[in-house]
Amino acid sequence: MIDDDLRFHVNGELVPASEATVNVRDRGFSYGDALFETLRAYGGDVFRWEAHADRLAEGADALALDHGLSDPELKRRVDETLRVNDLSDAYVKLSVTRGVQPGKLTPDPEVDPTVVVQVKPLPRGGRGGDSVWDGPATLQTVKTRRVPDRAVPARAKTHNYLNGILARLELRTTGADEAVMLDGEGRLAEGATSNLFFVRDDALCTPDLDGPVLPGVTRAEVLDIAREEGIPVREGRFVPDDLRNATEAFATNTTWELRPVESVDGIELGGGPVTRLLSRLFDARVERTHYAEDS
Amino acid sequence: MIDDDLRFHVNGELVPASEATVNVRDRGFSYGDALFETLRAYGGDVFRWEAHADRLAEGADALALDHGLSDPELKRRVDETLRVNDLSDAYVKLSVTRGVQPGKLTPDPEVDPTVVVQVKPLPRGGRGGDSVWDGPATLQTVKTRRVPDRAVPARAKTHNYLNGILARLELRTTGADEAVMLDGEGRLAEGATSNLFFVRDDALCTPDLDGPVLPGVTRAEVLDIAREEGIPVREGRFVPDDLRNATEAFATNTTWELRPVESVDGIELGGGPVTRLLSRLFDARVERTHYAEDS
Repeated sequence: MIDDDLRFHVNGELVPASEATVNVRDRGFSYGDALFETLRAYGGDVFRWEAHADRLAEGADALALDHGLSDPELKRRVDETLRVNDLSDAYVKLSVTRGVQPGKLTPDPEVDPTVVVQVKPLPRGGRGGDSVWDGPATLQTVKTRRVPDRAVPARAKTHNYLNGILARLELRTTGADEAVMLDGEGRLAEGATSNLFFVRDDALCTPDLDGPVLPGVTRAEVLDIAREEGIPVREGRFVPDDLRNATEAFATNTTWELRPVESVDGIELGGGPVTRLLSRLFDARVERTHYAEDS
Repeated sequence: MIDDDLRFHVNGELVPASEATVNVRDRGFSYGDALFETLRAYGGDVFRWEAHADRLAEGADALALDHGLSDPELKRRVDETLRVNDLSDAYVKLSVTRGVQPGKLTPDPEVDPTVVVQVKPLPRGGRGGDSVWDGPATLQTVKTRRVPDRAVPARAKTHNYLNGILARLELRTTGADEAVMLDGEGRLAEGATSNLFFVRDDALCTPDLDGPVLPGVTRAEVLDIAREEGIPVREGRFVPDDLRNATEAFATNTTWELRPVESVDGIELGGGPVTRLLSRLFDARVERTHYAEDS
């Protein structure tokens, strides 16, 4: 299951994927005491590195994880991993853990971090390319509620991912492939691995970041595009019925980009012009920033 | 920092601690998608194996992690690790992860688990022995709230431990060494790594398991002892003031056994006769079940 044609970056060394390991005493393994970013490389370079680096820094701040690595050094390791694997269009996962420390839960301020870069090929997608998803998303509201911010802040993208896993497990008995997770008050939060968008009354709606919602890089990009296009945007608190009664909807993350939503809780939505427009404009940004000079 | 005189059990093999690793694609590392038990060996055998095995099984059920390993097989690996390290009184950590699966968040029902046993020497403690803690606990109520059961059930003891880490990080600016964590409604839940007990009106009080409270093995043992002794027990919902105004208090976990609480939020409690009595009776059970035949 591990593709040994790939080499991963582990603590400054490039090793075959099967030998890319961490010690069992690493806090990333023991406690999920680690941050990660999912990145996407287009034409050999990662999309929106600064936004990902900023979020990683904010997560490190939230966890008081002073890893001591500069953004350029992290970027260098990502780039090196892409180059050595001869990858141009790729999925990239960058993880930074608090490393091995004496066997106590309370973290030591002195951190010798573990830094891992994993990659795999991923077609560009977009206009004319192969999509990375099989088809539109089918969403199902689940009982598992999003972890509240005052338990673990959503702005930190961490290796504590059981909350999303439990949400996805609920889908086993359904035909759905993404969970709609609510906050403690029953309001829309996000998908297990995606931010949620929908169109109502000609406005683009998405749960705001005051709730337990990851500040997705693709989410921010889509909001920026919408504002640039003059599409009315409503970031706010919504209930499941707002999504179910939408005229169109889509889910975003770095891997999916914009993935149209086919149905929510069995209610058909189908695609729509706003989703198609935003997808094309997103793709145009990818084209402009990553491929334009080559063509 | 890794003691290579020790050998750990990883997927059926005994390896030096520094070579005890998991692949970075293991879900235990990527997502904390793993369960663990902290065990204590007295006189060469782990205390209350059945209770730990039952809790592990309940956690596996909560996470739909069908690891396929029998209790005796898990016990055999624990015993083997103790023996090869020539350890009699020891700390043992048993972890079971969902292993490596294709790179999706949704777990595959087919699980090839990763099983790890870590050990280290730990003095027996108890009457006449060296205690494993430096002194009584100083508790501090923290802002970080316990993850609610409907986000991740507390009955599963998992590698998603950032909630407790964030609680402990809040103690950095205080002199306290254990956090008092509250549930979403502001009621007492538990410590970052311990269950909480206190004495009020001559009853032994502890938060009940309807809240986000780990069903601690030591917690159950203490309640059993108290009932056997005819000490009134109140499992219920309590507020921080109930603890602050207690006449005595202690925290329990497998490593600490019963650790007296010196103060809560700066309010002195000191030890007391109930804590001392229960500690001695706990120690007597350890003596009876683990050492009596040798003496």
